Amino acid sequence: MTDAPTEILDATHCALREHGYAEVTMRDIADKTDLSKAALHYHYDCKHDLLVAFLDHLYDRFEARIGDPDGDSPAERLHSLVDALLTEGSENPAFRTALLEIKAQAPYDDAFRDRLRRFDNAFSSRVRTLVADGVARGTFRDDVDPDTVASALTTFVNGAQTRHVGVGHPPAQSATTLHTYIDTALRPRDEPGDGSDTDDAGSASG
Amino acid sequence: MTDAPTEILDATHCALREHGYAEVTMRDIADKTDLSKAALHYHYDCKHDLLVAFLDHLYDRFEARIGDPDGDSPAERLHSLVDALLTEGSENPAFRTALLEIKAQAPYDDAFRDRLRRFDNAFSSRVRTLVADGVARGTFRDDVDPDTVASALTTFVNGAQTRHVGVGHPPAQSATTLHTYIDTALRPRDEPGDGSDTDDAGSASG
Repeated sequence: MTDAPTEILDATHCALREHGYAEVTMRDIADKTDLSKAALHYHYDCKHDLLVAFLDHLYDRFEARIGDPDGDSPAERLHSLVDALLTEGSENPAFRTALLEIKAQAPYDDAFRDRLRRFDNAFSSRVRTLVADGVARGTFRDDVDPDTVASALTTFVNGAQTRHVGVGHPPAQSATTLHTYIDTALRPRDEPGDGSDTDDAGSASG
Repeated sequence: MTDAPTEILDATHCALREHGYAEVTMRDIADKTDLSKAALHYHYDCKHDLLVAFLDHLYDRFEARIGDPDGDSPAERLHSLVDALLTEGSENPAFRTALLEIKAQAPYDDAFRDRLRRFDNAFSSRVRTLVADGVARGTFRDDVDPDTVASALTTFVNGAQTRHVGVGHPPAQSATTLHTYIDTALRPRDEPGDGSDTDDAGSASG
């Protein structure tokens, strides 16, 4: 048994996948639970309030997912982070589409924008920390700026998700580009195999 | 005097900026012209048909805008291309938001998706050609793969536009990242000033 809000938030996830952000109704969400539409309104005044609560719920899960990526070295952990967002996250294009609809609403909706900024900052901070760690350990180039790399990777991941939804560009292909970037652009130039043999970069820099 | 379709398409641009994709109506568009709503329907059956025609119109302008970027060298022309999309294009965040709404509709709408693919392919092809030209001239590294760079830049520009709309990330900052990338990652390693002094990269590689 789950308590009502968790059941509602899980149902919101399903309903968003099925109907998209613009079309989904409180009725659609209630239909995915054992609750009545009236019971749903007891917890959330309107669809907007429920979606804001849903984004908070999603953020908690996102933070847990990116908080401690697998791997020993900063490079390995960056690779895991990229896979967590692009490879694993791509299982569900319909949900990704609903999130893009929400991004497109952000200029009209401060509550959405605040939540989206939390995701943006969380991912960006995680990358920044890993890159700074790699620079400090000497496994990344010492002229790499963690802030610049963090922002660039955040932008690139946004683009991979948008292109996936908009034109069907495979997120796995975007992930490969980032994996190559981590194994080449971030690695010290004098490291053996630099620029060509990058297959073992993760372990070599660990 | 412009003929009716051009007047309608220009009015669509204004109305999309003002109302967004989801909310805009045929009435809103007619109100921006000297035509009646009935006259609008004479040219376009419904809002969807009009928006598809609008995307075609936008594509023609896009193609003209990116077809011959300013500059003598491939690097200079790539810089101009980036500015055309991110610096100049960012003047109008409301219109960019409407386009993101349309991208989020693409999975449900084949006509939108086809049009978005034309934009994606046009930009990507333009980058590919410029990078291949730079590699052939020896002003870009010979191990640079034009296809990979073209796809990466297309993804990054999508991300810059999405982050601008979603979280207000400044597109000029994304443009700076790409300018630096063009001046460092694409340049031959043995070129003077490689990796540090990149201010004159455009002219140095011309």
